[in-house]
Amino acid sequence: MPIITLLTDFGLRDTFIGVMKGVIWSISPNKHIVDLTHEIPAQRVVDGALAIAGAAPYFPAGTIHVCVVDPGVGTARRPMLAAIGDQYFIGPDNGLFSLLIKKAEDLTIPPVYIALNKTHYWLPQVSNSFHGRDIFAPVAAHLANGVKLEELGDPFNNPVLITIPVPQKNEDGWLGQVMQVDHFGNLVTNITREQLKPDTGVTISVKNTTINEVVATFGSKPAGELIAMFDSSGYLAISVVNGSAAEQLCVRADEIVRLTLSSEQAS
Amino acid sequence: MPIITLLTDFGLRDTFIGVMKGVIWSISPNKHIVDLTHEIPAQRVVDGALAIAGAAPYFPAGTIHVCVVDPGVGTARRPMLAAIGDQYFIGPDNGLFSLLIKKAEDLTIPPVYIALNKTHYWLPQVSNSFHGRDIFAPVAAHLANGVKLEELGDPFNNPVLITIPVPQKNEDGWLGQVMQVDHFGNLVTNITREQLKPDTGVTISVKNTTINEVVATFGSKPAGELIAMFDSSGYLAISVVNGSAAEQLCVRADEIVRLTLSSEQAS
Amino acid sequence: MPIITLLTDFGLRDTFIGVMKGVIWSISPNKHIVDLTHEIPAQRVVDGALAIAGAAPYFPAGTIHVCVVDPGVGTARRPMLAAIGDQYFIGPDNGLFSLLIKKAEDLTIPPVYIALNKTHYWLPQVSNSFHGRDIFAPVAAHLANGVKLEELGDPFNNPVLITIPVPQKNEDGWLGQVMQVDHFGNLVTNITREQLKPDTGVTISVKNTTINEVVATFGSKPAGELIAMFDSSGYLAISVVNGSAAEQLCVRADEIVRLTLSSEQAS
Repeated sequence: MPIITLLTDFGLRDTFIGVMKGVIWSISPNKHIVDLTHEIPAQRVVDGALAIAGAAPYFPAGTIHVCVVDPGVGTARRPMLAAIGDQYFIGPDNGLFSLLIKKAEDLTIPPVYIALNKTHYWLPQVSNSFHGRDIFAPVAAHLANGVKLEELGDPFNNPVLITIPVPQKNEDGWLGQVMQVDHFGNLVTNITREQLKPDTGVTISVKNTTINEVVATFGSKPAGELIAMFDSSGYLAISVVNGSAAEQLCVRADEIVRLTLSSEQAS
Repeated sequence: MPIITLLTDFGLRDTFIGVMKGVIWSISPNKHIVDLTHEIPAQRVVDGALAIAGAAPYFPAGTIHVCVVDPGVGTARRPMLAAIGDQYFIGPDNGLFSLLIKKAEDLTIPPVYIALNKTHYWLPQVSNSFHGRDIFAPVAAHLANGVKLEELGDPFNNPVLITIPVPQKNEDGWLGQVMQVDHFGNLVTNITREQLKPDTGVTISVKNTTINEVVATFGSKPAGELIAMFDSSGYLAISVVNGSAAEQLCVRADEIVRLTLSSEQAS
Repeated sequence: MPIITLLTDFGLRDTFIGVMKGVIWSISPNKHIVDLTHEIPAQRVVDGALAIAGAAPYFPAGTIHVCVVDPGVGTARRPMLAAIGDQYFIGPDNGLFSLLIKKAEDLTIPPVYIALNKTHYWLPQVSNSFHGRDIFAPVAAHLANGVKLEELGDPFNNPVLITIPVPQKNEDGWLGQVMQVDHFGNLVTNITREQLKPDTGVTISVKNTTINEVVATFGSKPAGELIAMFDSSGYLAISVVNGSAAEQLCVRADEIVRLTLSSEQAS
């Protein structure tokens, strides 16, 4: 029995998410539905793309992910479904699945993209501002019920892709950036172990602060100290032990992070 | 197998909601429970009434909605159940179901109201401040188990009704108001298409700002522009494309919204 | 079929919690998972200890509670499981279960503690910063599948215990403190009916304010009035009727609350 996940920028203040679950269960009772997060910053498609790409690998085969960060709702942007590996992704064709699609280049079976244009599987009335309720939730429920991809819409080949910033090589090392600030105030960058192996002889600079080593755990340093470590998704994060790096450094997403490697590493 | 929904002003900081689910599952295992929202502004019964009336139609027959916005908890106000159409609503008798009851006037079968006074279906100990846990959750679970309405309490006929503000006609058009500000900062008014058809020759004023048309989608205007459109619930909303109207106009709930119709429309 | 609960300080902004549910369902499909809260203040083990001890009694026998407030993640602190009464508690061995263990002194069957050291039941790759995903969620899922305690790890006898502040007796009465501020701004103290029975002849002081009686319900006083009453967990709470005591008095957790008893009571 497939799981359905929801990832949106809708927040939890309104009944948007509850209503989507009501729509799903009206069509496909007894499915497990899980909230990945509804706190994607409003209209930040790139944040949604990072979040779904990071979370999907922890779900079983057959999981149906409904992702709605959709500044173009109600315009001509296409509602789509992507079958990537053994999972399904439903949402607007606006780049939200770019990172998943990029990762899928390694797969032997290429993704299948469906333009969701069979209104039979939508709610009877479709608003111009809530396709999560009117199109994406019902399509996910019908898919969970076993409706075939080709019944939900027509295949297409050119989904919208957005550029997710990657670290840029320079003379001394790399220029990366803060991709997101998490709940604890950790600054999660786009720098991975690929830019930095082995982790010796490195200086990490953000704003006017520099850090001279990459530690293995929060417990490596006393509370209040600024550290850099690879987080649980493999990205370099700048943190304050038992504190908030975002608050202490006054840093937000998009801030530049400079990696200066020792001559040996940089070569 | 009925779904149980929860709608409260309890927030998510404490374990209130988790505990209500524990109580439900202790009595009625394996039911699906869904959070409609727990961010109703504290003690704002009218906001709760709007939210449950808007969300309920998206749930299947047999759904049991537990709604707790309850400034009178622990006083003589009655715990109640309303059977309206093919769904059930459980909560304090303080007007929370007013809008649902008003809508039910169109139904051929009138609602049934039960005063929840059979303590056998409550938790053994009832506090004076958390009837969500002690009365409403266990009653919902017993109802989900198939206990009959007449076993849960005695019928009554006069539930408390509160007035939900409706637009007032004046010489030039209508005076409405902002009913709620949603997660995106959209100003959701109590004006519907009934006050404005067809949508030509209209001026919408809120604070010192006027808008001269009603657009169909967010995408009709560039980012940052102030627009008016009918939202996914059919209410006129004032929005900033990819922004927050509430922040830009510094407007909150209850603010007056003035609709001036062209002479043709106003006639 | 056991319920799995999650209680953390992870917040809902990121996909941490959704990912933990994906891990659980990948191993043990179809279990009901409930969020107790994810808004425990970051790294506040004592707040987590209070929350899980308050919520657990409302769950049925066999429930598996996964609790992660874990400032020592990635260090030598032990991952543990406690079988207390008819429920299971999984998390770091850092005192999070202290209050439950203290309460368990009354039980005829002593708790069983397991050091989770059988990596076979963990995710294949274990990060240094997210044991909720890599150790605690998969162990909970395997336990829910029926894996025996002794297969998950080796018994041990000395779990870390932290001191939860209790009221101190003085000449005139008791010195307690605000343990937490809830969603409504109620100041929940560590004072119970044990310190105050019957509830006559008492003065409650916090900051420069005094309250001279303990009322039974919020409805006993008009909106806006400051009151003291025993809350739904049996703790003395200082509240503002339909308002926020935390805001009105500018009080946070840890503030001292002074109970002055009349001579009769204090004897």
